[in-house]
Amino acid sequence: MTRSVFVRARRPEHKQQRREAILAAARQLAIEVGVRNVSLGGVATAVGLAKSNVVRYFGTREEIYLELAVEEWLDWSDAVVARLATAAAPDDVIAALVDTLTERPLFCDLLGHVSITLEHNISVSAARAFKRAMIGTVDDLGARVALAYPGLTTGEGVELTGAAAALAGVLYPMANPPPALRELYAQDPDIAARCLPFQPTMKRMLAALAVGLPSQR
Amino acid sequence: MTRSVFVRARRPEHKQQRREAILAAARQLAIEVGVRNVSLGGVATAVGLAKSNVVRYFGTREEIYLELAVEEWLDWSDAVVARLATAAAPDDVIAALVDTLTERPLFCDLLGHVSITLEHNISVSAARAFKRAMIGTVDDLGARVALAYPGLTTGEGVELTGAAAALAGVLYPMANPPPALRELYAQDPDIAARCLPFQPTMKRMLAALAVGLPSQR
Repeated sequence: MTRSVFVRARRPEHKQQRREAILAAARQLAIEVGVRNVSLGGVATAVGLAKSNVVRYFGTREEIYLELAVEEWLDWSDAVVARLATAAAPDDVIAALVDTLTERPLFCDLLGHVSITLEHNISVSAARAFKRAMIGTVDDLGARVALAYPGLTTGEGVELTGAAAALAGVLYPMANPPPALRELYAQDPDIAARCLPFQPTMKRMLAALAVGLPSQR
Repeated sequence: MTRSVFVRARRPEHKQQRREAILAAARQLAIEVGVRNVSLGGVATAVGLAKSNVVRYFGTREEIYLELAVEEWLDWSDAVVARLATAAAPDDVIAALVDTLTERPLFCDLLGHVSITLEHNISVSAARAFKRAMIGTVDDLGARVALAYPGLTTGEGVELTGAAAALAGVLYPMANPPPALRELYAQDPDIAARCLPFQPTMKRMLAALAVGLPSQR
């Protein structure tokens, strides 16, 4: 068994299969318990490999989740582009950005963790791959947002797109609180009433930002 | 020695002194190495107590840092109010919010951690104390911001103030990257050029938001 695993792992197509199996297991675990609660050992167990084997494909759990973040950036971008094709008014552009984020809780969870936890404990090459993919995606998507939103420059479209991702990373964990906060909200409706709902807050903030950005030229 | 420590800890003023010593040690450590790198054991060592003694005052490291976050919220609010007294134009109000955040790296570090890490692993009563203090401060400060910024409602002032704190929590860790990213930026100036500087980005985003919020009434 050990020998056959070794032979398979040397063939490029099987290496790729194994990378994908690791990513799929990490994705499923994060959907189930949240990014913060998944360890490298948990991923290894889920995919049926030893931890020492997993780290031959990804150096750390943070590198696994940054690669998933890249996949999610691309998937989100495709979804926004599809929505922009039928966007007739500024509010449609804002909705295209926000509705697609609302439909992607894993992406929002990842966005909140990128600079606080995931960009720590990674190699320089993993950091480079992540940043290049993220910058490329936000530039491309931002240019399309600018074309769809009347009066925004390309640069402002990129800023609005970056702000959408940044705000999602802040508002998603606030709108999906941990157990102690859920209990607090159940006990104290006044405090619960101040917990910002994700989708309407995102829309309001981004709509205001899109109106205000041209004033800063 | 053990007996005398026990006797002192039963007197309220000494309990308070010990709480303050723990908070001061936690503050100093976080300033030196960042919030993410401080453990409860590290705080205990710095203050010269056993970990089991520290948890009689604060249940977890997260509770210590949420209490520091409350102190920092109040301190920031006082600083903004002082600046608002001489604010003559909208840009002065934005500068009052942003310059005072720029001067408070520990507060910005804490803001980035609140919903991602600190609100986990706390008691309901610690969560309640934090939320009450935070909501009270943002409401009071937001009302003052609205009075100083022409044409903003109280609600919009509260939103702008909350957005300032939320954005600071996102932009501060981006502008103060971990070692792998610092090395990447040194190697690749094109990627480094896309690292958003804290103070000008904060000012631009909040100025745009303040202009745009009234359009959403």
